[in-house]
Amino acid sequence: MSDNKVQIFDTTLRDGEQVPGCKLDTNQKLIIAERLDLLGVDVIEAGFPISSPGDFISVEEISKLVKNATVCGLTRAVKKDIEVAAQALRYAVKPRIHTGIGTSDSHILHKFKSNREEILKRAYDAVAYAKTFVEDVEFYAEDAGRTDNEYLARVCEAAIKAGATVLNIPDTTGYCLPEEYGAKIKYLKENVKGIERAILSCHCHNDLGLATANSIAGVVNGARQIECTINGIGERAGNTSLEEVVMILRQHPTLGLATSINSRLLYDTSRMVSEKMGMPVQPNKAIVGSNAFAHSSGIHQDGVIKNRETYEIMDPEEVGVTESAIVLTARSGRAALAYRSKKVGYELTKLQLDDVYDVFLTFADKKKEIIDNDIHEIMKVVKIEAPVEA
Amino acid sequence: MSDNKVQIFDTTLRDGEQVPGCKLDTNQKLIIAERLDLLGVDVIEAGFPISSPGDFISVEEISKLVKNATVCGLTRAVKKDIEVAAQALRYAVKPRIHTGIGTSDSHILHKFKSNREEILKRAYDAVAYAKTFVEDVEFYAEDAGRTDNEYLARVCEAAIKAGATVLNIPDTTGYCLPEEYGAKIKYLKENVKGIERAILSCHCHNDLGLATANSIAGVVNGARQIECTINGIGERAGNTSLEEVVMILRQHPTLGLATSINSRLLYDTSRMVSEKMGMPVQPNKAIVGSNAFAHSSGIHQDGVIKNRETYEIMDPEEVGVTESAIVLTARSGRAALAYRSKKVGYELTKLQLDDVYDVFLTFADKKKEIIDNDIHEIMKVVKIEAPVEA
Repeated sequence: MSDNKVQIFDTTLRDGEQVPGCKLDTNQKLIIAERLDLLGVDVIEAGFPISSPGDFISVEEISKLVKNATVCGLTRAVKKDIEVAAQALRYAVKPRIHTGIGTSDSHILHKFKSNREEILKRAYDAVAYAKTFVEDVEFYAEDAGRTDNEYLARVCEAAIKAGATVLNIPDTTGYCLPEEYGAKIKYLKENVKGIERAILSCHCHNDLGLATANSIAGVVNGARQIECTINGIGERAGNTSLEEVVMILRQHPTLGLATSINSRLLYDTSRMVSEKMGMPVQPNKAIVGSNAFAHSSGIHQDGVIKNRETYEIMDPEEVGVTESAIVLTARSGRAALAYRSKKVGYELTKLQLDDVYDVFLTFADKKKEIIDNDIHEIMKVVKIEAPVEA
Repeated sequence: MSDNKVQIFDTTLRDGEQVPGCKLDTNQKLIIAERLDLLGVDVIEAGFPISSPGDFISVEEISKLVKNATVCGLTRAVKKDIEVAAQALRYAVKPRIHTGIGTSDSHILHKFKSNREEILKRAYDAVAYAKTFVEDVEFYAEDAGRTDNEYLARVCEAAIKAGATVLNIPDTTGYCLPEEYGAKIKYLKENVKGIERAILSCHCHNDLGLATANSIAGVVNGARQIECTINGIGERAGNTSLEEVVMILRQHPTLGLATSINSRLLYDTSRMVSEKMGMPVQPNKAIVGSNAFAHSSGIHQDGVIKNRETYEIMDPEEVGVTESAIVLTARSGRAALAYRSKKVGYELTKLQLDDVYDVFLTFADKKKEIIDNDIHEIMKVVKIEAPVEA
């Protein structure tokens, strides 16, 4: 692996799926896993095998299906968890066990009612045991964001001694500021003995809206893996958005870092995950929102018409947004409808839009997707004239 | 003003409203403006008066209504724009004219077909002219994010000489990385003659998911105003989210910076803006998403039950999220329904949730909001038994 390669560890199917009421069935997970493999992610975290028989089967089936990516299963630092994960991963071409334990004082005292030395030993033992089943073992230090750096470095050393290939440094509560998180990675890179034998991984949560910035601060300071999800989906305010970190590294070549993602599949993958999970993406979501590349103000339109680069820092086609990729559904708002109507030639007033939107909803309820042709039909219903050229 | 006060400049009604098909009428704008004033924002950017007669009236009416905040109107560096803005703002207790011009080479060459010296003169003249109408004049250097620092400093100096009280440094295209944007603010703070007579303002866009991190980098490096919108609404991927920057400064007291926002009104304000604009907020939106404070995985629930701080970095009530604040509508997904059902005592299987969701949608279509009582009614329809205790 070259020095400037950042591995993309996708956890849409594990951490991303930890959303109230949003469980995917095995078949849906297989479809998403296949797409992630095509997208070019390096690791697919497929589930938490001990958590339920359904999750076990999903990890097992994904292991059979995936051709290129490493398939990973989560465990606690518990023997039974590790055995079950190894079992679920046995068909994987490249299996990885992801084991670990909480290392912040808050977790050690309140969750485990334990002490630092005991936790250190449990970390070592878990990695060593996982190592008896697979070569590739990732260790997570849960709540690393609030763990004091010196103790965290000792835990990391223990995990490396036991054979860990990857050290995951999660900001579990989403509290870190980018400078702080970057400094933590730098500290580990400089102070953990044997760190050259493992790669550091960023796992950030978005509670304060900083997951993306924290992950970038992490790789700038020496981490070489980012754990993320499609659309930033995940518990509470979610995880780092895969599409955002990938496009930042791509659009900022001076950082000297690259991923293996085929960015042209980002938009379609975003839509697929949103539909399968029933989790809408807001129109102003970076990279994949329906408005992400829409210009409306007169000033901006004028600028874009004169020269695209005046207001655009990336070509929408680079992330797979083509005119026809923006599809309207019953979940689409007036904004998206007005935008698309304009694209096919109808400039609507606010009053017209009200009428058109009502008819649009009846159409959209009947059909899954509204295409350009439907828009012309809708306009006929509300008696708005066809454009001279569509 | 104390040294550690960061002014919140809300542009929901101007930059936020520049979303395709999302125009608010004057009455809706007045309701939002009144709420923003109550929320404690320092400046309300009410509109772009020359852009349309409707926008003129909105700015005029908001000027009459707002009691505490400064009311601001946008202009280009054009005499007529400035005259019309001054006219629209004439009833404001604290009026501000926001004028400016593009300063990046891309804007100077392609948009204005001009040169640096001519743009410098237009900047000076615009501020000086605005100053003949109002005391408080903010200058924006459009596309400052891609403007070379030395020239940008000269433009800022000219604006200060002409009387500018605030210098807005927009990352118009949302391209900057936090370190880069912070360094730009630092450079201006250290190199612009007369900078002590004005405050620097951060205006960031979210095209790469970095608007919040960039704004925080700006104030850490000496800026004292953040331009932002409720829900991060705005053109393309939107602007900086007001709720995110406010809560970061509040939850990170070591930064030594504070705003005047009453955070307990954040959640209600978010919902109000989302409804009036017809722009949904995704469930995993930081701070104000319906799942922002929801815990679902067994591991996390276990932690939270043992000690709330294990996984929570802020009390939901601090941002106005109380049990009853999370209201279900026809736009709510299965996730929100399952979460709320659980809160009132129904733990649903995936199959049950499918049935319940269908009935829920028919209820939600009839009523604007689904309250706890409705959930019990819905469960009766699908014959799911009442919980022992609700």
